[in-house]
Amino acid sequence: MIPPAIRSQLIEIVGSARYHDSNEARLSYSYDATPNFQALPDAVIMPKSKEEIQAVLKICNEHGIPIVPRGSGTNLSAGTCPTQGGIVLVFNHMNRILEIDEENLTVTVQPGVITKQLIEAVEARGLFYPPDPSSMKISTIGGNINECSGGLRGLKYGVTKDYVLGLEIVLPNGDCIRTGGKSPKDVAGYDLTKLFVGSEGTLGVITEATLKLIPIPETKKTMLALFEDLDAAARTVSAIISNRIIPATLEFLDQPTCKVVEDFAKVGLPTDVNAVLLIEQDGPLEVVERDMEQIARICKEGHAVSVKIAQSKAEAEALSTARRSALSALARLRPTTILEDATVPRSKISEMVRAINQIAEKYNVTICTFGHAGDGNLHPTCLTDGRNKEEMHLVEKAFEEIFRKAIELGGTITGEHGVGEMKRPYLSLKVGEEGVAAMKAVKQAFDPNGIMNPGKMFAKDARKRVVMTR
Amino acid sequence: MIPPAIRSQLIEIVGSARYHDSNEARLSYSYDATPNFQALPDAVIMPKSKEEIQAVLKICNEHGIPIVPRGSGTNLSAGTCPTQGGIVLVFNHMNRILEIDEENLTVTVQPGVITKQLIEAVEARGLFYPPDPSSMKISTIGGNINECSGGLRGLKYGVTKDYVLGLEIVLPNGDCIRTGGKSPKDVAGYDLTKLFVGSEGTLGVITEATLKLIPIPETKKTMLALFEDLDAAARTVSAIISNRIIPATLEFLDQPTCKVVEDFAKVGLPTDVNAVLLIEQDGPLEVVERDMEQIARICKEGHAVSVKIAQSKAEAEALSTARRSALSALARLRPTTILEDATVPRSKISEMVRAINQIAEKYNVTICTFGHAGDGNLHPTCLTDGRNKEEMHLVEKAFEEIFRKAIELGGTITGEHGVGEMKRPYLSLKVGEEGVAAMKAVKQAFDPNGIMNPGKMFAKDARKRVVMTR
Repeated sequence: MIPPAIRSQLIEIVGSARYHDSNEARLSYSYDATPNFQALPDAVIMPKSKEEIQAVLKICNEHGIPIVPRGSGTNLSAGTCPTQGGIVLVFNHMNRILEIDEENLTVTVQPGVITKQLIEAVEARGLFYPPDPSSMKISTIGGNINECSGGLRGLKYGVTKDYVLGLEIVLPNGDCIRTGGKSPKDVAGYDLTKLFVGSEGTLGVITEATLKLIPIPETKKTMLALFEDLDAAARTVSAIISNRIIPATLEFLDQPTCKVVEDFAKVGLPTDVNAVLLIEQDGPLEVVERDMEQIARICKEGHAVSVKIAQSKAEAEALSTARRSALSALARLRPTTILEDATVPRSKISEMVRAINQIAEKYNVTICTFGHAGDGNLHPTCLTDGRNKEEMHLVEKAFEEIFRKAIELGGTITGEHGVGEMKRPYLSLKVGEEGVAAMKAVKQAFDPNGIMNPGKMFAKDARKRVVMTR
Repeated sequence: MIPPAIRSQLIEIVGSARYHDSNEARLSYSYDATPNFQALPDAVIMPKSKEEIQAVLKICNEHGIPIVPRGSGTNLSAGTCPTQGGIVLVFNHMNRILEIDEENLTVTVQPGVITKQLIEAVEARGLFYPPDPSSMKISTIGGNINECSGGLRGLKYGVTKDYVLGLEIVLPNGDCIRTGGKSPKDVAGYDLTKLFVGSEGTLGVITEATLKLIPIPETKKTMLALFEDLDAAARTVSAIISNRIIPATLEFLDQPTCKVVEDFAKVGLPTDVNAVLLIEQDGPLEVVERDMEQIARICKEGHAVSVKIAQSKAEAEALSTARRSALSALARLRPTTILEDATVPRSKISEMVRAINQIAEKYNVTICTFGHAGDGNLHPTCLTDGRNKEEMHLVEKAFEEIFRKAIELGGTITGEHGVGEMKRPYLSLKVGEEGVAAMKAVKQAFDPNGIMNPGKMFAKDARKRVVMTR
């Protein structure tokens, strides 16, 4: 609980209309999209300026009160669950697009802007902001930056970090710093911009961001390639890229995923083949057509049983929307859906998919796999029941083995979801004890009192991933 | 001087053939490409493995002996001048390309690989490593990473940081960490990879790097656009990009630069116009042709007096080679050449070029300007005489005013050369005292004893830029 004297100080800063500590408010912000993590914050604050945030942080830093910055809470790593209580910062009053600069191809935004609204606003000017996490309809750009969100267009265009040029950040001590700017080239000191992207709210509070835009691609085409053999599909992913073609999107869906997605979205996805590749290319028309022809050829050589190009924009849109709905579709089947994002070099996709299936069989758990195959970023998704302790134990064992396999293949424990609370026991698998120590030193440098999103990223003990806290 | 007992320990690690402390050796590594900075190191070590580096760093960390990692010393910020003595680490025995992975489009290298050799090796496989600093014939990839080098292709393709996927790093305490890997998507903890890119050797020693490659563009065309009006040329840079065209290269040369470059390289550069834009586009033939047509149209609308497309590969190559020789050409004119890299948002180029000329006039110093106009990254280059104290004082004043103007226009004090020793008094202009404090905290986190390239990046006092040290 926030002591009454401090509570009064905080209310003085933001006003009582933007300070909430009713049970309802606390409950509303006690969880995010991650199953089985919940903890009540002590209060919820909705700041409307960096000055308010500076004042709040100064007080919290002095009194050791946790601060959890939160966008729409769509993350899947329990990154915004206030596991140690404290204050959840919500940015619904800092949700403006401040400037679209058409000469410098940048957009400057407040953290609370919804990703899709940003994308639509710049597209209306013929510009393009590529990072498109599946949650983009509700996710905020602040959340995307803190998690370094990926998306379906990551293969060709990269992820959030590739588009953040500059940040305004409030540090735990109340200092406000500006990193980078509108120039893509800037080597004045350490690249704090990139350090903060993906820092999961553990170093400071991002209060403004300048993002890079690119010209919008002239055209886009979408293709479905169907495979009887899962391995053949995975090998085809590698073959396309080895042929020096980088599609905008190169998604993989296994048969169980296709089945539930089709059941949910009804867009004509095949449900009778073992694997589907959803492939998009964008760019100048001549190039897109040439690439699509070559990709079709490579798919056929790779034993695709069918290769079909969407005949209209509506059909193409329906397919990618269906793919984006995979999590929602899968979530209907059983009480708990755990979506992971073990990632491997793309040449290892086939080996990884096989390993996931073997591991699921070994532990007798249901895992569907889909994801951004072109990036080697798979989403093995377990359909389970969080109330069944015995089953959950097996799920944990299975995922731990999946993470270990990803590392063994030269990959990582998380491609785009972050470590959060959920994967902190596994961080050292990827970066080693020395790497964890180096990262902890960075944390200590910015946040010596440990108020920023405590309990995230770093394991305190060997606690396993699916734990109900507080 | 290294105490005899420690000297013996170090020789035991690397052998006497790779430990040098003769006057000749020390003198050879007492300077880099930055005029007017020189300081003798105590010794020069040429390690051949990360294990040797770990052992050397442990000893130096214990005894507070400075470590200066150095590539070919082509930097222009006194970044590798051993201003506080200690040991210069030279990587001529760690200069192998370890792997070109055609399936994952990566190359893994040791730090001592020469940039151009790397570029040629991957191009032989139909792959492309875009960062191309003007010094690429002699610069090393380790140096490029430590400085986050840019180059002529930065506008379309980005700079070194955009291509570093993973690093192996030895920390001052002797720990060896691996960051990132072959997957472009990896959010397991803080992005230490990007933090180390551009860290100027102040945090640790990079011993291996995995770099991203892309398919090599199918074709390339080169154009020269000539302008009587300097302002018109600068406005045309903005106009091209506002028209949603991103050329691979968009270089600006003012008349004095053109004149000396032509005199040096004899490639037919015009010497009778006030500004020249050197423009390259690469990609699929149809797209390149279409873009070049549009660019030509925009240049003419922008009052270019002549627009000429190179008619052969040889002619195109000669033009960009001539541009790369600008520093060498200018350096022939007077004893000391100080090349700076103040950078502004590209919409401000015209204003910046005007300001540079006014400032040069005000202080009565000779400044030629050329650079990567598309990135807003200009190289105002002062031709002067380091022995003339009075003139140097004016040069310093002029550059300080140029830096302040760049900041005022939303730019930065350095786009691609780094802070080093030379620009440390100006870092706070860009990032503020709070920003410097945050960066110092990062430095402290990795290098608490301050052995890594001490005296760089952070100002100890208000000493000005052109100082002879030790």
